[in-house]
Amino acid sequence: MQQLTVDLGDRSYPIFIGEGCLDATPSYLPYIAGEQVCIVTNDTLAPLYLSRVQKVLEGKKVTAVILPDGEAHKHFGTLNLIFDHLLAKKHNRKTTLIALGGGVIGDMTGFAAACYQRGVDFIQVPTTLLSQVDSSVGGKTGINHPLGKNMIGAFYQPKAVVIDTQVLSTLPAREISAGMAEVIKYGLLGDAPFIDWLESNMAALMALEPSALAYAIYRSCENKARIVAQDEREGDVRALLNLGHTFGHAIETQMGYGQWLHGEAVGAGMAIAAEVSHRSGWISDTDLARVHRLLAAASLPTAAPASMTVDQFLEHMAVDKKVLDGRLRFVLLRRLGQAFTTSDVPVALVQDVLVKSIAKGLVGPG
Amino acid sequence: MQQLTVDLGDRSYPIFIGEGCLDATPSYLPYIAGEQVCIVTNDTLAPLYLSRVQKVLEGKKVTAVILPDGEAHKHFGTLNLIFDHLLAKKHNRKTTLIALGGGVIGDMTGFAAACYQRGVDFIQVPTTLLSQVDSSVGGKTGINHPLGKNMIGAFYQPKAVVIDTQVLSTLPAREISAGMAEVIKYGLLGDAPFIDWLESNMAALMALEPSALAYAIYRSCENKARIVAQDEREGDVRALLNLGHTFGHAIETQMGYGQWLHGEAVGAGMAIAAEVSHRSGWISDTDLARVHRLLAAASLPTAAPASMTVDQFLEHMAVDKKVLDGRLRFVLLRRLGQAFTTSDVPVALVQDVLVKSIAKGLVGPG
Repeated sequence: MQQLTVDLGDRSYPIFIGEGCLDATPSYLPYIAGEQVCIVTNDTLAPLYLSRVQKVLEGKKVTAVILPDGEAHKHFGTLNLIFDHLLAKKHNRKTTLIALGGGVIGDMTGFAAACYQRGVDFIQVPTTLLSQVDSSVGGKTGINHPLGKNMIGAFYQPKAVVIDTQVLSTLPAREISAGMAEVIKYGLLGDAPFIDWLESNMAALMALEPSALAYAIYRSCENKARIVAQDEREGDVRALLNLGHTFGHAIETQMGYGQWLHGEAVGAGMAIAAEVSHRSGWISDTDLARVHRLLAAASLPTAAPASMTVDQFLEHMAVDKKVLDGRLRFVLLRRLGQAFTTSDVPVALVQDVLVKSIAKGLVGPG
Repeated sequence: MQQLTVDLGDRSYPIFIGEGCLDATPSYLPYIAGEQVCIVTNDTLAPLYLSRVQKVLEGKKVTAVILPDGEAHKHFGTLNLIFDHLLAKKHNRKTTLIALGGGVIGDMTGFAAACYQRGVDFIQVPTTLLSQVDSSVGGKTGINHPLGKNMIGAFYQPKAVVIDTQVLSTLPAREISAGMAEVIKYGLLGDAPFIDWLESNMAALMALEPSALAYAIYRSCENKARIVAQDEREGDVRALLNLGHTFGHAIETQMGYGQWLHGEAVGAGMAIAAEVSHRSGWISDTDLARVHRLLAAASLPTAAPASMTVDQFLEHMAVDKKVLDGRLRFVLLRRLGQAFTTSDVPVALVQDVLVKSIAKGLVGPG
């Protein structure tokens, strides 16, 4: 079992990575302050892992909430099921929530922890590649609104993150790809040697080769932890983590949450961001091709959905959280392994890139 | 115009108190970072004050949400009207919300600010005595849940608090009394000289004599600001502010939010807490009588509702946020002007005090 620390002063916390940490007492007990624990999971994962986590918490007063599975349920109605349960079971403000699941469970449970009685502790136990390398680390929590993704939420840090690489063996191939989008993102935005490594090892990763997976997850978390420690609440540094996300969120919102997986939309979004970087004169033809090749090797889309219009993109991007005082803000690539934020991209250039990306005629993943 | 500061390091903020600060540019503009502003108010207050606040913000892009009036609306459905509006009007994360109203508007707007795009700025403009002396200061925000009051929320500090004493002239007498409960609370919990002052000046306060009101509000805010600066997130010090609230919340929950006003329930709750303090041997007959007399002088209830049972009290108190690991925690009076928290009160003693309080046969205010 390896261990990383997210360094945030008195809110610092450990990330445990390895095979079997799901069942290891030291991953949990030092981070549970009271007697009460509530495990939040979904109806797909409960049969697989719930009893294992309950077993490791023997001696605590443990209850469980089982939510419906899927991004389509990441809204207030589902969040409220957690509150209903916590109140019905009389959980007090010393309780600890455990998010056992992917990004949807992690984001909703974290937000429930942020709001329940104005804040209780929580532990992330991410069970998808995407949540292991991205959403479980860094304290972004929230729910969707019909008019925008993650529009209601909080910055709220967990007490610990428990990443068991073994659980990925039951994950559908599409979700491995979706997670790989965020792994590739860390290379593109700030870790050029990691891009080289990914180009050499993508086949092993897609085959779920254990040591390759563990390395990619560790390195992704290390990159994320460094960025979050520098900038917890998304100033300029943390904004780099949104590479591909402005376009990606527009795709998710338009296509309906869950039709395109988040990682798939981010894959397409990174392809578009790379095109904009190329057209703006930052990256070469060769580098653009490398980005596309790496995304394709991870079975990710490299273009916008054929059914979307440029106006739909612009409309959704105008309510994106990254928009400030009406100006679209983009994360672009200065070179492979170095991203930057800018509001100085001509709208006409973005429109043209989108027209061409849409024209590739991608019907969509899945 | 007087000014106080709530001292919370880089989250410190000013409280402006005086006649006319509602219309004063310096109360707002230095605390608005961006171009967008959203005023949140209710259908009772909008005709009275909305255009005045809009006028003082001329030059900003100002929108307004008008919510239904009353504690019965302090739930997620109403909160969501704020989110719907902010998203429909494309407010970005540099927007500033202005809470123009009483405690319900302040708590909901503050919570909306805490959650919208994971946190935007807000300014409190409290228009009731209760919110001026209590809920607008200190950063407690939230909404009610059918199983408990303020169970969903956040600690989230405003950028400024603007208290115009003139607005109290339109407040119903019942709401003046309700606010006076919190004023009396500051005396009882930690400011003995203020109790003496209140005993001499309650008639003037109830007659809305301007200089008496301004002094009582300033001194209340001063007490609250000092306590919040010592303990922002409700450890032992801030818990003293809950004097009367454990019993009070049980009354509100049982009787239905809004039937008993919050301050009325706190008044009854303080009477009960004083009885428990007396029965536990802390305060004398004379002091208990002083507490009852002061509450009565403010036209506040001094006993539990006749229609409630002891079991209903205990049931509601068991889910109160102040309950830790199953033990009821009370704020009691060691003497007038000095409160303390304790979990060491025999349940039988509390039951007996409640039986006697209920037996007084209070049908209820209003």
